[in-house]
Amino acid sequence: MNFEKEYCRYRTLVDNYLSRFIKEEKPKTVYEPVRYVLEGGGKRIRPVLLLLSCEVVGGRRRDAIHAGAGIEILHNFTLVHDDIMDHAASRRGRATVHTKWDSNVAILVGDELLALAYRALLRTESVHIRKIAKLFTEGVVEVCEGQGFDKEFETRSGVTVDDYLLMIRKKTGKMITVATEIGAVIGSASDRQAKALRAYGQHVGRAFQLQDDLLDIIGDEREFGKVVGGDVMEGKRTFLLLEAFRRARGKDRALLRSAFRNGGVSRSGVAEVRRIYFETGVIDATRAAVRRESTRAKTRLQSLPASNARALLLWMTDMLLNRTH
Amino acid sequence: MNFEKEYCRYRTLVDNYLSRFIKEEKPKTVYEPVRYVLEGGGKRIRPVLLLLSCEVVGGRRRDAIHAGAGIEILHNFTLVHDDIMDHAASRRGRATVHTKWDSNVAILVGDELLALAYRALLRTESVHIRKIAKLFTEGVVEVCEGQGFDKEFETRSGVTVDDYLLMIRKKTGKMITVATEIGAVIGSASDRQAKALRAYGQHVGRAFQLQDDLLDIIGDEREFGKVVGGDVMEGKRTFLLLEAFRRARGKDRALLRSAFRNGGVSRSGVAEVRRIYFETGVIDATRAAVRRESTRAKTRLQSLPASNARALLLWMTDMLLNRTH
Repeated sequence: MNFEKEYCRYRTLVDNYLSRFIKEEKPKTVYEPVRYVLEGGGKRIRPVLLLLSCEVVGGRRRDAIHAGAGIEILHNFTLVHDDIMDHAASRRGRATVHTKWDSNVAILVGDELLALAYRALLRTESVHIRKIAKLFTEGVVEVCEGQGFDKEFETRSGVTVDDYLLMIRKKTGKMITVATEIGAVIGSASDRQAKALRAYGQHVGRAFQLQDDLLDIIGDEREFGKVVGGDVMEGKRTFLLLEAFRRARGKDRALLRSAFRNGGVSRSGVAEVRRIYFETGVIDATRAAVRRESTRAKTRLQSLPASNARALLLWMTDMLLNRTH
Repeated sequence: MNFEKEYCRYRTLVDNYLSRFIKEEKPKTVYEPVRYVLEGGGKRIRPVLLLLSCEVVGGRRRDAIHAGAGIEILHNFTLVHDDIMDHAASRRGRATVHTKWDSNVAILVGDELLALAYRALLRTESVHIRKIAKLFTEGVVEVCEGQGFDKEFETRSGVTVDDYLLMIRKKTGKMITVATEIGAVIGSASDRQAKALRAYGQHVGRAFQLQDDLLDIIGDEREFGKVVGGDVMEGKRTFLLLEAFRRARGKDRALLRSAFRNGGVSRSGVAEVRRIYFETGVIDATRAAVRRESTRAKTRLQSLPASNARALLLWMTDMLLNRTH
């Protein structure tokens, strides 16, 4: 099996669904940006995970496509609103909605996307529709909570590594777990299978975010698509920063403290922070954590029956966690 | 039956549900404002309509309370986000979320409220849960569309009375209709009953908005709780303004045109616009339209079996449409 090609096939399924999904034209203020967002591409990780989670327990892809699209639309809703809150000017190489239009449009378009996410999800034909919609909804609640913590941490002192892990579990991890859980329900997974898929999602979600934090500091700028060290320059409380602060002593600790206090460091300060990350062993520790979570994720998959879907999920796990961008 | 007292009992049911609904404490950024919004009172029109629509077809109130709370939380979500977009400083005599906290908090809190609205709704025990969630979701979509049109109209020239009616049908009317429709489904209404309740909701929704437009210009400032003539000063395209523009000639027409063009009139200009509204007969026409819609609404209710719930719905219709604030 050519995994890369097979993954693209799934991604295309999602892309096609989304491009056909919007029938309305008016009001233009709403539907032009909605189309712009949904046609913006991306890896479509969450829907592909959902589709494969359904198939790996014996379900049919076509029964899961509505929920897959729903979870992708939901993800895009969070991006549109987070970008306003973070004053982000671009995303995937294109202007963000609030930059291309304005903040009011972006608020409204995010709301509309959330409604459209439910519209897609609720097309799912399943006797478990209530459970599916509940999983989805609890996902939205936790994503909002995660974003709330993230914004609080920007100005709060004394944020610990545990605080950070709770925040990313909610903000990033939860929707990945929800994708695998909903896939399992649609595929009529046994309790044991559902549990394995949920645990898989949890490990992947955590590893995914750690890898993202890591790429900020050791990624290839051209491939990564954002400025390397961007998190450091903004003083963002990442796992790396918090863990390095816990480990560093003396002048290094003072430098990291000033990164917190002054809301980041200058571009030239990035190299210094990077050096501290390496010297305190935080880079290695994070790499090890990504490997550990990745291994645990794959181990949980091994308990499911062998199939093309399982093979693709295993490949996808490596693809996500060994990525350089 | 003491209708006023009876209505209060229903409203209290909703208030109590909402005050017990939020269990989470953290992040404070999210849950403090969420509580602030949900404890802000209001008439709770939509949930009471939903509960009564369920009862009037023979359903039980306790089966509809989750959906009732859901629709009220949803309504509050729209208020929080609309207030950001409209730069509104106060609501029901209290500071709006983006004023008391900030815009970022208000965006996030609105999102959270929308998720919580679904959480409440999905507690409904009904074999028709998919249909209920779909009605709810299509309501959210239309409310967003209505808000989109509303914002577009602020700067667009050539907005017609029909454009306006479409906009308010989506922005205000739809959720009132959805309340009656969901109540009907939970109460296992027959097709004929469901149709009557939907039509009832449509008439009430339209009349409610027309009455609101009317109160802006002829309401009692102390009772109404906002500045009389506020819409006029903002140059808001209301039914009154659009219809008066259609009817007025000469200098009066020019004055109204300048109200559109300059984004409103000064406080002293309000009296002039008010005079034009009276002289063109627009005030009388709007009052007549409210009465007509109100009568049609009540006529549809008469086709349902007589009951306390029906009597209260009939009373409520008059209460909503004869209000002075």
